[in-house]
Amino acid sequence: MHDFSQFIREIPDFPKAGIIFKDITPLLGNPTAFHKATDEFARRYKSEAIDAVVGIDARGFIFAAALAYRLGAAFVPIRKSGKLPFDKYEVTYDLEYGSDTVAIHRDAFPKGSKVLICDDLLATGGTLAASVNLIEKLEGNIVGIAILIELTELNGREQVPDYDIFSLIKY
Amino acid sequence: MHDFSQFIREIPDFPKAGIIFKDITPLLGNPTAFHKATDEFARRYKSEAIDAVVGIDARGFIFAAALAYRLGAAFVPIRKSGKLPFDKYEVTYDLEYGSDTVAIHRDAFPKGSKVLICDDLLATGGTLAASVNLIEKLEGNIVGIAILIELTELNGREQVPDYDIFSLIKY
Repeated sequence: MHDFSQFIREIPDFPKAGIIFKDITPLLGNPTAFHKATDEFARRYKSEAIDAVVGIDARGFIFAAALAYRLGAAFVPIRKSGKLPFDKYEVTYDLEYGSDTVAIHRDAFPKGSKVLICDDLLATGGTLAASVNLIEKLEGNIVGIAILIELTELNGREQVPDYDIFSLIKY
Repeated sequence: MHDFSQFIREIPDFPKAGIIFKDITPLLGNPTAFHKATDEFARRYKSEAIDAVVGIDARGFIFAAALAYRLGAAFVPIRKSGKLPFDKYEVTYDLEYGSDTVAIHRDAFPKGSKVLICDDLLATGGTLAASVNLIEKLEGNIVGIAILIELTELNGREQVPDYDIFSLIKY
């Protein structure tokens, strides 16, 4: 596997003091790196006949859309509550302060579809667990979870113990 | 060209009374339609040696990312102010009520890069004109503007008279 971490820029104290933000725009801005990272995901899942790639608003849309195109699959968005216009399921989850709600359209994919979740970052896993919950409500068959950057110290993968997580960059 | 409008769902009174929202999720959810729409954009620009495809937060990321992958180009995000972590340019523009600000990283692409803007919807053109302004600040060479849905009655293309706009679906 390539060392994609060289294309990740660390921004201290963003969005708030004490956080070191992982900026993926240098990776996206390098055509070869963007292409190879997408292909690396595709190689892992191309034999699985994925029906739909689920992307999580907003940065998660980027790799999920490229991967859906590459795999010949549908693209399905999970968005913050209020952004999706049709009948939807919602899941609310706790944040450090307060809570957040994510939603998926009820007709996003047929029951039993082979679904791949793709997101740019796995931190504490709250959004990911909520997304898994949404896909389970639709009775999707979650084949895997593809992550660009996993912050392993935060143990996010423990939030979704039943599923296989493949991350391209680990910190 | 294919008739992609059959995959667009109209949602009355969303996000507020009197608006008929164009829901693109049925198009994204159909693998063939999503693939063909992306390829239709690619066919238009593949001889242009595009360096970067610029996508506009958040739905605009979807086709822009797939198209960047397809064209072997970089993907560059334009986001709401506060979402981008590095040094940036910002442009504020008027809305019906209030204003909005969009931003781009100052190192998004080198001066003179051949840039394609891709977005899902062209309505009044405020966001598009602001995005063009941002790319001009970086001295990008805007080769074209690829739009999935153009609401022609709103005359959005008049906001960016100097550039070629290619839309797949017109209402």
